[in-house]
Amino acid sequence: MSDTKVYLLDGGSLVIDGFHVFWNRGPAGEVRFPTYAVLVEHADGRYLFDTGYDFAHVQRVLPFEKPIQTPDQTIPGALAKIGLRPSDINYVINSHYHFDHCGGNKHCTTACTICHAKELEAAGKPQPFEHLGYSDLTFSPDLAKAKQNPPPPDPAMDIYTPKFETVTGDQEIAKGLWLFETPGHTAGHYSMMVELKGRRPMLFTADACYSQKNMDMMCISSFHLDPAESVRSLHKLKDLAKQHDAELFYSHDMESWQTYIKAPGFYS
Amino acid sequence: MSDTKVYLLDGGSLVIDGFHVFWNRGPAGEVRFPTYAVLVEHADGRYLFDTGYDFAHVQRVLPFEKPIQTPDQTIPGALAKIGLRPSDINYVINSHYHFDHCGGNKHCTTACTICHAKELEAAGKPQPFEHLGYSDLTFSPDLAKAKQNPPPPDPAMDIYTPKFETVTGDQEIAKGLWLFETPGHTAGHYSMMVELKGRRPMLFTADACYSQKNMDMMCISSFHLDPAESVRSLHKLKDLAKQHDAELFYSHDMESWQTYIKAPGFYS
Repeated sequence: MSDTKVYLLDGGSLVIDGFHVFWNRGPAGEVRFPTYAVLVEHADGRYLFDTGYDFAHVQRVLPFEKPIQTPDQTIPGALAKIGLRPSDINYVINSHYHFDHCGGNKHCTTACTICHAKELEAAGKPQPFEHLGYSDLTFSPDLAKAKQNPPPPDPAMDIYTPKFETVTGDQEIAKGLWLFETPGHTAGHYSMMVELKGRRPMLFTADACYSQKNMDMMCISSFHLDPAESVRSLHKLKDLAKQHDAELFYSHDMESWQTYIKAPGFYS
Repeated sequence: MSDTKVYLLDGGSLVIDGFHVFWNRGPAGEVRFPTYAVLVEHADGRYLFDTGYDFAHVQRVLPFEKPIQTPDQTIPGALAKIGLRPSDINYVINSHYHFDHCGGNKHCTTACTICHAKELEAAGKPQPFEHLGYSDLTFSPDLAKAKQNPPPPDPAMDIYTPKFETVTGDQEIAKGLWLFETPGHTAGHYSMMVELKGRRPMLFTADACYSQKNMDMMCISSFHLDPAESVRSLHKLKDLAKQHDAELFYSHDMESWQTYIKAPGFYS
């Protein structure tokens, strides 16, 4: 049984405004940020935490986020770089169901999908201000068909019938693989911590904290369902990092991203 | 017993960003907006709904909001224009306790202060992202002294001991004078409707809806405690206006403001 390995799979980049990144602070202006998936090679199986965005979806629904994504930066392309195929993924874990975190789910047709129970519910009945965030429903063809009439054409939709396993509370879902509730950005948001043999634990904030600067300023992003909960989650992440001597990995931080080891390199 | 009259007391203007006015939409750029108080001359007494901002406070704490205010645009100055003094005010009603709605309370030393019970509580223990909003505590010298050590120098603080009357729920606090709960922007936000003999009721949204454009787009402002509640309040205001055939008066809308009758003119 091999030791756990963590690969960061580059998913390309998008653009939002500085006022979106730093709620009510800004400054205004385009901020290009990375998206990525986290592959955990674990004794119990291969876990993929988030799956980035689908280029065609963003071009169609949110072209103003100016996607840049090469074939190598799709889930199939990024997995191929380390000799894997989407069918090698046993579990997809979604931090939440915003389009830039679940766009590649549909490629992992044989995986079991893990998420917070509240998140799956929220994706089905978003607040009006969440419609763009929850615009890519291909992670659940049933939901897409129920909500969109007709659903957007996508061959993957017809061959993909994911099995969901919903979770609540803080959970060690496999040895050394933790999900921590960090709601606020969305109703059922999860961050993930991975314990490794040869280094400090890695704590992936997902969108509970976009960047180091958000953490330093204790400033949440402007995309949120509940700002008071968002602030509590920011504090929780800070406390967890301290308690476990974990290193924080931010979801959308171009500066931090430059310093991360990307696949085919890995952490172990 | 005379008929009810409503005077709009010009309180000067401030500047925020377009991303503050229209949450996550913008566009970016300075937006100058009016602030005003609403004087209701009623058979039961003189009610003042909101009291604008204090110029010295904004210069000291939020100079980036670029206040423009003449002496005529202070509460004493604006009242003087219609032959009144602050001591003629019997009741101050605060929609909420953000600095640009309660800065003139301290002048009304003999008035009873009416607000939502939750709002008074919230002003005493704001969320971290609400600190600037709730930065002018002169409306409650007790609170200011408890929270700020030392409180900012202000002669009014020593002569002003307001009596609070807190309210909850939708209430007709005097004949034809209604307070409607519209939370979300803050915890205990109230909008006010005034029924008049000679025209449609006036429904003052306060900060549950800054402008006509916010209503048209169903887009809330970026300053909020609970965005889902804010959206519900926006719908509630729209429904109330329809139900009562009331005219909506927005709190911070330069374009609408140009069309309003200002004191010494009045509505009746």
